[in-house]
Amino acid sequence: MPRYKIQIAYEGNAYCGWQLQPNSCSIQGEIERALAVFLKHPVRISGAGRTDAGVHAKGQVAHFDTQVLFEKRRLLYALASLLPSDIRVISLEEVDATFHAQYSAKRKIYSYHVWQEKIIDPFVRRTICYYSQPLDLDAIDQALKILEGEHDFASFANQGTPVKSTVRKLYRLERFPAEGGFRIEFEGNGFLYKMVRNLMGLLLNIGAGKIDTDEIMDLLAKKDRRASPSAAVASGLCLMQVIY
Amino acid sequence: MPRYKIQIAYEGNAYCGWQLQPNSCSIQGEIERALAVFLKHPVRISGAGRTDAGVHAKGQVAHFDTQVLFEKRRLLYALASLLPSDIRVISLEEVDATFHAQYSAKRKIYSYHVWQEKIIDPFVRRTICYYSQPLDLDAIDQALKILEGEHDFASFANQGTPVKSTVRKLYRLERFPAEGGFRIEFEGNGFLYKMVRNLMGLLLNIGAGKIDTDEIMDLLAKKDRRASPSAAVASGLCLMQVIY
Repeated sequence: MPRYKIQIAYEGNAYCGWQLQPNSCSIQGEIERALAVFLKHPVRISGAGRTDAGVHAKGQVAHFDTQVLFEKRRLLYALASLLPSDIRVISLEEVDATFHAQYSAKRKIYSYHVWQEKIIDPFVRRTICYYSQPLDLDAIDQALKILEGEHDFASFANQGTPVKSTVRKLYRLERFPAEGGFRIEFEGNGFLYKMVRNLMGLLLNIGAGKIDTDEIMDLLAKKDRRASPSAAVASGLCLMQVIY
Repeated sequence: MPRYKIQIAYEGNAYCGWQLQPNSCSIQGEIERALAVFLKHPVRISGAGRTDAGVHAKGQVAHFDTQVLFEKRRLLYALASLLPSDIRVISLEEVDATFHAQYSAKRKIYSYHVWQEKIIDPFVRRTICYYSQPLDLDAIDQALKILEGEHDFASFANQGTPVKSTVRKLYRLERFPAEGGFRIEFEGNGFLYKMVRNLMGLLLNIGAGKIDTDEIMDLLAKKDRRASPSAAVASGLCLMQVIY
């Protein structure tokens, strides 16, 4: 059966997250509903990763199978009118049957936007984390260097779907200037449940001087979620790209 | 009585416009309500211009008078928690009693964002005008040159508050590339009711080949709103700056 890969952008504030849930409005559910209307059969899509409630995406990826023949452009335009305006399927391509949005993914890039000024720009309010306390950016940059590489991130994973291993490799952790403050890009071979938000919680605590960069390796070694600070808010996080 | 000038940014989608209206939610009303809570007396503010329902602002200006003494920064922070998150007072300064937000304004700059691609980015959907039909941008640029300068814009003014004259001077009409399409900046000594949206209606018709640039001077000469195309949608328009 032909398999299709889609790229999706969404402003996640109104949703319970990517994953289909009973009695809740999920991104996956909205896309499956729209695809079913267009293809005239029930559709199940598989996403590259499950973004949490309130998390955004510019480059989420999913795949689905169908035997229905269609014109690619027509499907994209139809979905644009069938989907709510905060979700858009931005591209579609036919892929090999061995392609899997989650298992074939080699890397993912997340971005987290911290707003530091006292007055929040109304136009970006839905996609930032407000943190007006002064932050030591040098300490944050040091922490980014320490976290780069392969580590057991059990201390920064919430309980979710069971995973074989909590070891992940972060290829790149980089801070960029951004409107009202800065944003941090996380590029890794995979991310555990709530890992980026939990790491951001740590980084904000380091910037605020509440945790020292010397403690990071100890926190990792504890492999205990309870030993590390709580997660940073969902609204600052965006899944930028999935690399195959 | 001391007079204060405030600069305001708002995402206008949820409002009936700038101007106070009975039984409707206006930007002016929200700010007056928040100021009254902080200053502990009723406050009337005067805006530089009345943006329509759904129109945005990054640099709206207003003034108000009060004898209450306050710390400027405290007022700004208090307003940030008293106002809905789509409205923010971004700066405040004390001004001379002769300053008037509307009458002292020398120029205003509006920007209108046209989205041309078929798929709308969910993150900018509230602040664009969707127009996917192909447009002849050279014709639009020609039209911008013709409209520049001093003209009687009666054909592009809706009936609103009576005005002494419908002559206005447009110092600069400029097209810039923008996400998904382009935006046009309008800099003028004043704008009549719905003038920018009506001019954008004309420009989109010119771009679509429905009206020729040769007809512009005739349309202006008619001084008849009914002879010109209907207004472009509110959501693409933003009041960028008021110059004093």
